Amino acid sequence: MSMTIGTVIAVDLGGTNIRAALCNHEGQVLKRIKQPTHAQEGPQAVIGRMIEAMRGVLPDSTEPPVRAAAVASPGPLDPYKGIVNYAPNLPGWTDVPLRDILRRELGIPVEIGNDANLAALGEQRFGAAKGVADMAYITLSTGIGMGVILNNHLVLGMRGLATEMGHTVMDVNATWSHAGVLGSFEGLASGPAIGRRAQEKLREGQPSLMLAMAGGDIAAVTSKEVSEAAQQGDPLAVSIVAQVARIIGLGFVNVFHLFDPAMIVVGGSVSLMGDMLFEPVRQTIAQYVMPPYRGRPVVCAALGDDCGLLGAAALAFDIKD
Amino acid sequence: MSMTIGTVIAVDLGGTNIRAALCNHEGQVLKRIKQPTHAQEGPQAVIGRMIEAMRGVLPDSTEPPVRAAAVASPGPLDPYKGIVNYAPNLPGWTDVPLRDILRRELGIPVEIGNDANLAALGEQRFGAAKGVADMAYITLSTGIGMGVILNNHLVLGMRGLATEMGHTVMDVNATWSHAGVLGSFEGLASGPAIGRRAQEKLREGQPSLMLAMAGGDIAAVTSKEVSEAAQQGDPLAVSIVAQVARIIGLGFVNVFHLFDPAMIVVGGSVSLMGDMLFEPVRQTIAQYVMPPYRGRPVVCAALGDDCGLLGAAALAFDIKD
Repeated sequence: MSMTIGTVIAVDLGGTNIRAALCNHEGQVLKRIKQPTHAQEGPQAVIGRMIEAMRGVLPDSTEPPVRAAAVASPGPLDPYKGIVNYAPNLPGWTDVPLRDILRRELGIPVEIGNDANLAALGEQRFGAAKGVADMAYITLSTGIGMGVILNNHLVLGMRGLATEMGHTVMDVNATWSHAGVLGSFEGLASGPAIGRRAQEKLREGQPSLMLAMAGGDIAAVTSKEVSEAAQQGDPLAVSIVAQVARIIGLGFVNVFHLFDPAMIVVGGSVSLMGDMLFEPVRQTIAQYVMPPYRGRPVVCAALGDDCGLLGAAALAFDIKD
Repeated sequence: MSMTIGTVIAVDLGGTNIRAALCNHEGQVLKRIKQPTHAQEGPQAVIGRMIEAMRGVLPDSTEPPVRAAAVASPGPLDPYKGIVNYAPNLPGWTDVPLRDILRRELGIPVEIGNDANLAALGEQRFGAAKGVADMAYITLSTGIGMGVILNNHLVLGMRGLATEMGHTVMDVNATWSHAGVLGSFEGLASGPAIGRRAQEKLREGQPSLMLAMAGGDIAAVTSKEVSEAAQQGDPLAVSIVAQVARIIGLGFVNVFHLFDPAMIVVGGSVSLMGDMLFEPVRQTIAQYVMPPYRGRPVVCAALGDDCGLLGAAALAFDIKD
């Protein structure tokens, strides 16, 4: 499908930084630029800086020309029309026709994709799931995002809004909602949710290393302190990691039963807890996943911060001229 | 894709009956045979009766010949290899290569598909979601089954085992499992789950019309009595329908967020409760679905008992010679 000649420009648009790279078909970064997004300046300024970064990584005149470009953007966005509908970390972005603006400015084919979807594409083409036709990528971080690839194609849905696993109900008896969704996976197991669990227990007066780690301020305890204290064997932190691992494992059971992937690749800051988190996650999956789905790997992402960028490169190589 | 000439043979293999039909490309049944499965006689006898039924609906020699055949079978099955791995209502069915047996016997192309997946295909080609490229079909019955079509293709996964929505965790704090899965949607909202809810409340001594309807035997109360009593305004039955509708609505929120379908089509015996169930289901969806997915229809299936059969016809028409 994708041609294996030439280069593409990949962009990862984040709330903090814009990263642009010139990539080849093996996912190698030949040139890269990173600059602050300055999101508060609004879409026009941000897009201007993005174009500047993209031009900055263009090959020189002695090299083969660029074939196409793609942008990983926070969602929700419409990948079919190339429109960013809204982006929580980018003030003023409402229905921005990013694809067409970039096409016009750069004169090459451009596509855009949701950052979690493109991270999945990156890991599937160049990372931990290289060559695996059916896989799910989940990022456990400030939010919980997912991208699913089945039969080598992203699962997109009518509007490109599918696989929002973080916003599924996993506790029908919850008395709270998160982002409008009752008892959601993200509300139960994201980084901030882990921090909140710790804060609640500390407010109940349970002793823990976490309090000193956060300078004695309960409200300053985050998933980082939970992770560090658990590594030192702190009982409260260990029990919180166990609770969260169980819920993440149950979420992954749902992913196996819903999408039937050969493997799950996990990225995001929470995944940096490593086997302390993944071992109990795997045990929960083994306990509750149905027999035909048993024994499938759950592994760490391989591309780190570059997963979205390299997913954008993969998407750009998929564009048919 | 599908050619619009000729006819196909469609089969619906159930635990009680085998139904075979000769169908045209508009989903019209030109000839049909229904006979008991006699499942207890084992796979060889059942397949023999299936072949007999398929031969029984063959066109006569003056009509155009049959192009292909397809079978809707209970799962789990492997649609890629055409093997029925296991079927709860068909004793002795273990890894039966049904597709290849039928190909050999009939000398025409044959495919097989999971009954919920083919019901989705039937409703999408010929029923309530005709012409809708992205849709989900959910059957609420003894079990909860689902089939999802995105961009006019069934979502299958690595082994054809995707979209098992009934077996997803929706109550992470449950103290019970159903079919091995903790706090699952099917355990919360299938027909038998509705009956169990009623029985529990009756055992607590709550008065209800349901008890007399079941001849005074609490253990004989099923979702049918719940439905009938609720229609007569029985307070306990009404409250159980409200609880179940809320959970079904939350399950449908998950379906919208996971697959981004344009609509959800609902079949199965529980769906026969009609608007008494669907109105609160729709209200729950409106309350918890995220803004970009709002306002999408949730409708009753149109094909009734024929949905699997007509889905098999659609699958047969999709076979490329």
